[in-house]
Amino acid sequence: MSEPIDKPQASRRRFLAGAAGIVAAGATGGAVRADDKNLPPNVAGWTKGLGEGVVARPYGQPSPFEKDVIRRDVQWLTASRESSVSFTPLHELDGIITPNGLCFERHHGGIAEVDPNDYRLMIHGLVDKPLIFTLEDLKRLPRVNRVYFLECAANSGMEWRGAQLNGCQYTHGMVHCVQYTGVPLKLLLEQAGVKPNAKWLMVEGGDAAAMNRSVPLAKALDDCLIAYRMNGEMLRPEQGYPARLVVPGWEGNMWVKWIRRIKVGDEPWYTREETAKYTDLLEDGKARKFTYEMDAKSVITSPSPQAPVKHKGFLVITGLAWSGRGKVSRVDVSLDGGRNWRAAKIDGPVFDKACVRFYAETEWNGEPLLLQSRAIDDTGYVQPTKDALRKIRGVNSIYHNNGIQTWALKASGEVENVEVG
Amino acid sequence: MSEPIDKPQASRRRFLAGAAGIVAAGATGGAVRADDKNLPPNVAGWTKGLGEGVVARPYGQPSPFEKDVIRRDVQWLTASRESSVSFTPLHELDGIITPNGLCFERHHGGIAEVDPNDYRLMIHGLVDKPLIFTLEDLKRLPRVNRVYFLECAANSGMEWRGAQLNGCQYTHGMVHCVQYTGVPLKLLLEQAGVKPNAKWLMVEGGDAAAMNRSVPLAKALDDCLIAYRMNGEMLRPEQGYPARLVVPGWEGNMWVKWIRRIKVGDEPWYTREETAKYTDLLEDGKARKFTYEMDAKSVITSPSPQAPVKHKGFLVITGLAWSGRGKVSRVDVSLDGGRNWRAAKIDGPVFDKACVRFYAETEWNGEPLLLQSRAIDDTGYVQPTKDALRKIRGVNSIYHNNGIQTWALKASGEVENVEVG
Repeated sequence: MSEPIDKPQASRRRFLAGAAGIVAAGATGGAVRADDKNLPPNVAGWTKGLGEGVVARPYGQPSPFEKDVIRRDVQWLTASRESSVSFTPLHELDGIITPNGLCFERHHGGIAEVDPNDYRLMIHGLVDKPLIFTLEDLKRLPRVNRVYFLECAANSGMEWRGAQLNGCQYTHGMVHCVQYTGVPLKLLLEQAGVKPNAKWLMVEGGDAAAMNRSVPLAKALDDCLIAYRMNGEMLRPEQGYPARLVVPGWEGNMWVKWIRRIKVGDEPWYTREETAKYTDLLEDGKARKFTYEMDAKSVITSPSPQAPVKHKGFLVITGLAWSGRGKVSRVDVSLDGGRNWRAAKIDGPVFDKACVRFYAETEWNGEPLLLQSRAIDDTGYVQPTKDALRKIRGVNSIYHNNGIQTWALKASGEVENVEVG
Repeated sequence: MSEPIDKPQASRRRFLAGAAGIVAAGATGGAVRADDKNLPPNVAGWTKGLGEGVVARPYGQPSPFEKDVIRRDVQWLTASRESSVSFTPLHELDGIITPNGLCFERHHGGIAEVDPNDYRLMIHGLVDKPLIFTLEDLKRLPRVNRVYFLECAANSGMEWRGAQLNGCQYTHGMVHCVQYTGVPLKLLLEQAGVKPNAKWLMVEGGDAAAMNRSVPLAKALDDCLIAYRMNGEMLRPEQGYPARLVVPGWEGNMWVKWIRRIKVGDEPWYTREETAKYTDLLEDGKARKFTYEMDAKSVITSPSPQAPVKHKGFLVITGLAWSGRGKVSRVDVSLDGGRNWRAAKIDGPVFDKACVRFYAETEWNGEPLLLQSRAIDDTGYVQPTKDALRKIRGVNSIYHNNGIQTWALKASGEVENVEVG
């Protein structure tokens, strides 16, 4: 890139509280400091030199100034090739679409490297005609475009026994939301001809874990997709390139990546990943069976431990909410740890089983706050407190923790992960 | 990445036409060829070796197999640093969201490299209180999330005198569609206090071209944004990082990038880029003044010259449509060069001033077709033929060509850019 001719150090102006609670930096005239001399109202250095052209950017990348906006892992948690996870930087995003490069990852045997020319999807078992589809077969078929959230069942899983990870990227970052393009699974099953006694599918990935799960046939026929695109372009390798299962609203590990096989049967398979793993161990040692739906959940992404408050005065509290059972119909925000609530504003599109973005405006005068959000979905379900969840489910599980998150905003503007009540 | 243990060459199976016009590759059993032995129903090589973990991918990239899905330039057209353009690979995408790395670019002085700490937006002129906003000021303010298309006024501009560029990436690839997050410009203008006689804004970019345009105050107060995010993350450098103007539905060069200055006035400025450039020269030598809105337009993205048809039988024709005047209400598709039309299916969300995705299914038996699409928006406007446009506007302009595109599908499956009538 071309070097700016002159790049003065920015001054840190104090915010001025506006009449309507809206704030703006110092006005021109006397307020413009000498060290701003090449910034407006003057002409900045970067305007004086020709910038780089398009040639070097056939596939664009973020600004170098955004180098810290990345997925992150937690070394002590899982950072092996056998079992690895990275987290979406929710505190650095806005809107509802997650850019593909920042969608969290969770692998049970690393990222399968599948040559799209060699990709095959097999459908067999209780069908009239077993079929094998190439990628080109799939891409030739009718397709649909749907925006869905995908949440790992273990999202917030480290928080069952108390506040632990200090940042929404770690406590809630195993969720993302993109527009998928894919073939309705119903269409493929119809081609194979499902036998009358069929009730379940076993779906299997092409990764080294051969990740497999049992999916009720009814769900498959309702809204499952074999997706090959996300946000317009082909799936990313770590999201199952070239094709994955989309199971709207249900726990992430059912969304089998690099999907290679669908076996149709009359009962569930009770695979390792739905018995030893991905079941919720209760207080009495029994495990909840087949907890598919991701219940309504929300999190304030800013302010949050990784996004502290830098200025007193006008403050926009923002976050994401989602429900695996339908649309988010309302999000409430509390500033006092759940004693008082008010409805936040939901802005942008509200899709079924997708993230929504919410905002709540306030004036912050430096007093400590206990920030919470709670999602309400169109079934009437209200996101519960963590303690309410623990009363029913104990603390043995690492899955399906959709309890209300509390962030303590301190006088310094720093934010901590805490529990209340 | 880990090397697959064994990667057999894929066989090219013939498609079988299904009963319902849906096609699938050969069934298992006798149809499975020997050279497929490590593909389903067997276990492919990539399942046998552990894949790479998450650590190396803090910001994810597309699969190496998708290396040809890139923006492209046209060397003879503009590939200098002074004036450069690259095109969105529309034929390689589906759905409505353009991934940030593939959004077309158009620069008049290269890409300004703006340090976000030094960024300033000045509002002055006919205001009560001139203001300078830092990026942090902007990010603290209330914001909205909106999905909009952005189209260069010169998109399809090389086609005025006849079919020329052989691919929708080149004929129509100066359009993209993303979700923006930004501050309503109205909010900033209210802070500055617009004087009663104000009617126009001059908006100016921080690039070497100091790109500037006149924008009616009414439009600014209606729906313009100062956007700093696209698809959730911060704007890409080539899209105006850290902030650009969003002028929904209006021609792309008004969406000033790296925006540094907004001057409020009582009449338009008649800048170079709205007089010598970005005006439509008519047959009589006069130029149309201020042609802001991008009229309804559509293009079939597949089949198209860069996306030929590989198989006879079931064929999904797909493309994009958009209108700068509101919502796309219908898209028609013709297989015979505009003699007969039928309504395509619009799938996915339909937003105001955003792209919609359409599909039309057919059986193709190898006969030559003349593929066309036409968009109808909710004002009742119908996308015209190129000849109808030429009758009114002549062929002197390179701007605002929203004429109906014709692709000739040949018996070989190849597709060419042609004109009919």
